[in-house]
Amino acid sequence: MSTERHHSIVLAARPEGEPKESDLRLVTGEMPVPGPGEVLLRTIYLSLDPYMRGRMNAGRSYAKPVEIGAVMEAGAVSAVVQSNLAAFAPGDIVEGRTGWQSHAISNGRGLRKLDPGAAPISTALGVLGMPGMTAYAGLLTIGQPKEGETVAVAAASGAVGQVVGQIAKLKGCRVVGIAGGARKCAYLGDELGFDAAVDHRQPDFAAALASACPAGIDVYFENVGGAVFAAVLPLLNDFARVPVCGLIAHYNASGVPEGPDRLPGMMRIVLSKRLTLRGFIVSDFAAQQGDFLREVGGWLRDGRIKYREDFVDGLEQAPRAFLGLLRGENFGKLIVRVSPDPTRI
Amino acid sequence: MSTERHHSIVLAARPEGEPKESDLRLVTGEMPVPGPGEVLLRTIYLSLDPYMRGRMNAGRSYAKPVEIGAVMEAGAVSAVVQSNLAAFAPGDIVEGRTGWQSHAISNGRGLRKLDPGAAPISTALGVLGMPGMTAYAGLLTIGQPKEGETVAVAAASGAVGQVVGQIAKLKGCRVVGIAGGARKCAYLGDELGFDAAVDHRQPDFAAALASACPAGIDVYFENVGGAVFAAVLPLLNDFARVPVCGLIAHYNASGVPEGPDRLPGMMRIVLSKRLTLRGFIVSDFAAQQGDFLREVGGWLRDGRIKYREDFVDGLEQAPRAFLGLLRGENFGKLIVRVSPDPTRI
Repeated sequence: MSTERHHSIVLAARPEGEPKESDLRLVTGEMPVPGPGEVLLRTIYLSLDPYMRGRMNAGRSYAKPVEIGAVMEAGAVSAVVQSNLAAFAPGDIVEGRTGWQSHAISNGRGLRKLDPGAAPISTALGVLGMPGMTAYAGLLTIGQPKEGETVAVAAASGAVGQVVGQIAKLKGCRVVGIAGGARKCAYLGDELGFDAAVDHRQPDFAAALASACPAGIDVYFENVGGAVFAAVLPLLNDFARVPVCGLIAHYNASGVPEGPDRLPGMMRIVLSKRLTLRGFIVSDFAAQQGDFLREVGGWLRDGRIKYREDFVDGLEQAPRAFLGLLRGENFGKLIVRVSPDPTRI
Repeated sequence: MSTERHHSIVLAARPEGEPKESDLRLVTGEMPVPGPGEVLLRTIYLSLDPYMRGRMNAGRSYAKPVEIGAVMEAGAVSAVVQSNLAAFAPGDIVEGRTGWQSHAISNGRGLRKLDPGAAPISTALGVLGMPGMTAYAGLLTIGQPKEGETVAVAAASGAVGQVVGQIAKLKGCRVVGIAGGARKCAYLGDELGFDAAVDHRQPDFAAALASACPAGIDVYFENVGGAVFAAVLPLLNDFARVPVCGLIAHYNASGVPEGPDRLPGMMRIVLSKRLTLRGFIVSDFAAQQGDFLREVGGWLRDGRIKYREDFVDGLEQAPRAFLGLLRGENFGKLIVRVSPDPTRI
């Protein structure tokens, strides 16, 4: 056995509002040893995603919170180091929910073997992973975009948003991306072929969004909430669909926001415009995974879908990178490179 | 020709907040004469419905506002007095959107001939009319109630609510009605067979609703908004559906309500519980009218659906009755008897 140590990031304290680096703690310990029916995995790529903020709270959400002192949850791409399972051999590359750690023990449940020849293995955390599937299922099943309609997507250069917009383009829609900063907006137009990109940090954001949507908005893919949703709401057309995927602007909120109370006004708009708002999480659409991998995998191979990843090196950088993600500092799918990628050597 | 005069109720002024009787005005004039291709109708039953409050405002809603000085819009059941149309003969009973008036001229478009032998003709304004169709389409298409689920309905003894609850019972659901006052609540349990009825005027309404819904709420048929929706929201189960049909608690609102701002919290619940909220109006489901008449008509004939009507006598009483409707003073489908029903003599 090597003398390598095991590193993990655990939840040290439940954040009040915006998390601090001290809410997360690096723990170093003995390398775990796989028992019968288990494999030892070495993490290569660790996925950082906005939903993890919710797991840091004690309150009820769609999943149980991470306990204090427990390893933070995450999807990751790993290499099999040792295997006591017939289905896995050392050197296999797998994707699974193994958490913020350098190595993990798994009984194989929920592990998905990747084919490094089919696509770069990091894509299993992004365009061909949970964020891509979120985009695919949420847009097509709830958003139901029709040719010629206008689709607006928030956090448009992020892991989910970039896929939402590109699929909407493939469906013949006018696509308007909303992102923070000129660099991200330029990327959406120049690289991804969105019809328009609007910077939500500009002072006249609402007016700029309105000009970018001369025919209103038929599908709004909600990742953000807050001021972005407030600017979108008056632009929604009759019968618009709003897949509610995330609300990153709210995740750090503590206490009840000041008035006025916008809920009655929103409900009136839901009624008068006959809107559909529907919240979802990707696991609700697990049955679509085969279709997703086949269809989006095909678009990726054909170059009809592009993707952008934002790599950070070293597990110890994960807390800082995650805090930056919540502030929109990442540019593309945020991934921590925890150990070298053997398929790229 | 008779010397009978024509009476109508016109919009005299746009209400600020709660309408006053003086916002509506009775106008008396010459009896209109049908031209070629027209019929003269005598109104028998005039339907009063909450949506009419919206038509009194200048602002955009799903339909154009009534102009100042114009006859208030409404559905009504009428007798044909004179006909210059082959499809209609004097004595025919028809339903159409002929407005708050004693007589109307029609070119026949949108008139539906009724069979007085099939059901009392007043039901064409209630259980077999727009409110019944609203209940049928909204509950089944958006609510999608499944056997064993809990369906809660607001304004449950009203024209729409009573049908929603009874259809949900026929679908095998636990049905909880929300209504104002003990008399209405007793009716829901004793006459309509709802599993529970909760008075939203009682001081501990939210707690009473929670006890009435021990397994949470899977479908909430929204007619009311306001405090009723606030009490329902925490009881909604994962994947609950909320057909948004009406918001009577908001219709008189002027200005922006005070804080706290409950919109962000609501959106968080939409996401974490994966709710579907969908606004609709009955005309969105016009294609279902044949199914509705066949299915609900059948239930009515078999005695599996009951209905309650609240009659007011005389067109001149319509303004006061309408104001009472907005305060929940009616008990059942509110109908103005404008002239004698020839099928009941």
